[in-house]
Amino acid sequence: MTVTPVSLDSLDLDPAFALHRGGKLEVRSTIPVRDADDLSLAYTPGVARVCTAISDAPDLVNDYTWVSNVVAVVSDGTAVLGLGDIGPAAAMPVMEGKALLFKEFGNVDSVPICLDCTDTEAIVETVVRLAPSFGGINLEDISAPRCFEIENRLRELLDIPVFHDDQHGTAIVVLAALQNAARLTGRSLGELRAVVAGAGASGVAVSRILIGAGIGDIAVSDSKGIIYAGREGLNPVKAALARDSNKLGLTGSTEQALAGADVFIGLSGSTVSEEAIASMAPDSIVFALSNPTPEVEPDVAARYARVVATGRSDHPNQINNVLAFPGIFRGALDVRATAITENMKLAAATALAEVVGDDLSEAYVIPSPFDARVAPAVTAAVARQAREDGVARK
Amino acid sequence: MTVTPVSLDSLDLDPAFALHRGGKLEVRSTIPVRDADDLSLAYTPGVARVCTAISDAPDLVNDYTWVSNVVAVVSDGTAVLGLGDIGPAAAMPVMEGKALLFKEFGNVDSVPICLDCTDTEAIVETVVRLAPSFGGINLEDISAPRCFEIENRLRELLDIPVFHDDQHGTAIVVLAALQNAARLTGRSLGELRAVVAGAGASGVAVSRILIGAGIGDIAVSDSKGIIYAGREGLNPVKAALARDSNKLGLTGSTEQALAGADVFIGLSGSTVSEEAIASMAPDSIVFALSNPTPEVEPDVAARYARVVATGRSDHPNQINNVLAFPGIFRGALDVRATAITENMKLAAATALAEVVGDDLSEAYVIPSPFDARVAPAVTAAVARQAREDGVARK
Repeated sequence: MTVTPVSLDSLDLDPAFALHRGGKLEVRSTIPVRDADDLSLAYTPGVARVCTAISDAPDLVNDYTWVSNVVAVVSDGTAVLGLGDIGPAAAMPVMEGKALLFKEFGNVDSVPICLDCTDTEAIVETVVRLAPSFGGINLEDISAPRCFEIENRLRELLDIPVFHDDQHGTAIVVLAALQNAARLTGRSLGELRAVVAGAGASGVAVSRILIGAGIGDIAVSDSKGIIYAGREGLNPVKAALARDSNKLGLTGSTEQALAGADVFIGLSGSTVSEEAIASMAPDSIVFALSNPTPEVEPDVAARYARVVATGRSDHPNQINNVLAFPGIFRGALDVRATAITENMKLAAATALAEVVGDDLSEAYVIPSPFDARVAPAVTAAVARQAREDGVARK
Repeated sequence: MTVTPVSLDSLDLDPAFALHRGGKLEVRSTIPVRDADDLSLAYTPGVARVCTAISDAPDLVNDYTWVSNVVAVVSDGTAVLGLGDIGPAAAMPVMEGKALLFKEFGNVDSVPICLDCTDTEAIVETVVRLAPSFGGINLEDISAPRCFEIENRLRELLDIPVFHDDQHGTAIVVLAALQNAARLTGRSLGELRAVVAGAGASGVAVSRILIGAGIGDIAVSDSKGIIYAGREGLNPVKAALARDSNKLGLTGSTEQALAGADVFIGLSGSTVSEEAIASMAPDSIVFALSNPTPEVEPDVAARYARVVATGRSDHPNQINNVLAFPGIFRGALDVRATAITENMKLAAATALAEVVGDDLSEAYVIPSPFDARVAPAVTAAVARQAREDGVARK
């Protein structure tokens, strides 16, 4: 028999371990089962009448089971935080954490599902088979470029919301923060030239949402430098991005592209020099979002940039996905949306930006995750937009 | 957009529907998330240290996530209660009910998973892919004979408990009740000749556990009558059962086989005549377990039989799986068992029978589902036996 080779007591000296002991979730009944009468309604024979009704009118599953309120948080453990491909078991604490945030911030029930497969086809097939049990699918920490195809395939195959949070959650919060940073500095998005370091899940999605929102120009870099049309060896996702970005036709490094740029968005895990930040245009905006180590130290960036944001809770302007995903799913589930449209994402970003309102300042372009106004604002905006887009079933 | 074609208000006049409105389960956090400090331990950056530790020592997933306490309740909706193949959505209220019973009776967290596939290979493959997220697999309401192969394959492929409750839960409770009925009537199991009507999941499993426990003889019938070695067209499961049962070489109908038999166990959904019950041996034992309509009315059976049991809560001696599965999984999870062995099932039955103790009577051969002694007794017996059988990891 396997024996755990480490002492739990010594691990538990770290408060993160002590907190995680036994896990972070439980499943509870929402109804009483005190006696045989309760049992005969919640289970046999009473439950059979509910089953028969759903068999006759399948939509009733949304009214008489938890399905329409429960989201599967699905990962294959290949791109977990900054840790990379650590596998399904080691990914579980993050997925449990996500489920916890869904509940605490959006009153969305969710179940962490870490899959023992990484093949695109296998993941798509598995999620399709699971889908009758859930009202939505939140994909999480699946590495690029597979994550793009998996999400696209599932969006085509399923009539429930499918949302890869590493892409779209990040994109929505970045857009909200950038809308406010632009407002603060008296510019429109169309006047801004941005450089995005990183063409993984979040880099691609952030670039896409900014293009959709009308950014002036945007250049995206990967480990080989700025992506431009015709660059050798681009995968299909990067080739498509090359066509839609980089109007100036920049080539070379991220740092070279930053000269005169208005916005830097770091989603790469790499570093950017102080000189490169210094070379940006006046009133520059720096979102150094890699965690735990930002692409540039925020204190250094602040010497040159007007607005600095990070992914960290110990600095102002934390770009945190928890600002988006709970309200997005809450809004989508509330109206039983069949999908999360681009418009719903843009509406979420605008609603999130508007929470800041007149308190806008260099140190406050995005609300705190603990601002109780956030989830209701996002929820309402997403539900409204789902109705306008014709994807609401309720 | 789809519109529900029925009025929920009118459905809710049935208290079973009113109770089911919105579902019966929720997921809750077991730890607080009040502020950024909590968040930094439960989620990034603190969670990364826990992920890294599990990546280095995979067994730690059982200590620092909910995995080792959570069971997947998996169905394909092909054999739901007596309703048959009603599909995954319509099966969900039963699976939610099961999850609720797991929690209420065994403090086992569980998640209902209704699959949109019925192919044996597809179900096996899907459950294997899901397995890293769960500490056990409870198969439910999957039709025979696929259920046998699915369970066997999963038991080979996985190192966590896999248990098809329709088979083994029923078998364990029947064995417990029969042990007590035999004791009441002063006989050993070896002195009893039994007839089992039904060779589906529960009929086969009940027959198998009784053979394993040393029943004198047992004849099993399906829709074509008593199963005997050499009968045309037997599937492999029934052919194997034919070899191991029916020492007398009976042929013909269930009712014919009952002449002079000591025990009748109905798991067929069919009916048995009063005359056939009357033809049984003195001190006969009748378990008419089909639900909601027993094979023979219990009041009729009681004219001839010494002990009568049903699946119904409105008669004495209710054979209810909830007496077994919560304690079985609780015990298996407590010691992190790699499997549920035959000995563990027998130990569960004996523990369940012993709860009745000196209060044994014709109307009390099996405890009530609400007897608070049941789950702890089964849990302890199963955990002890897992250790003895060398399948405990803790």
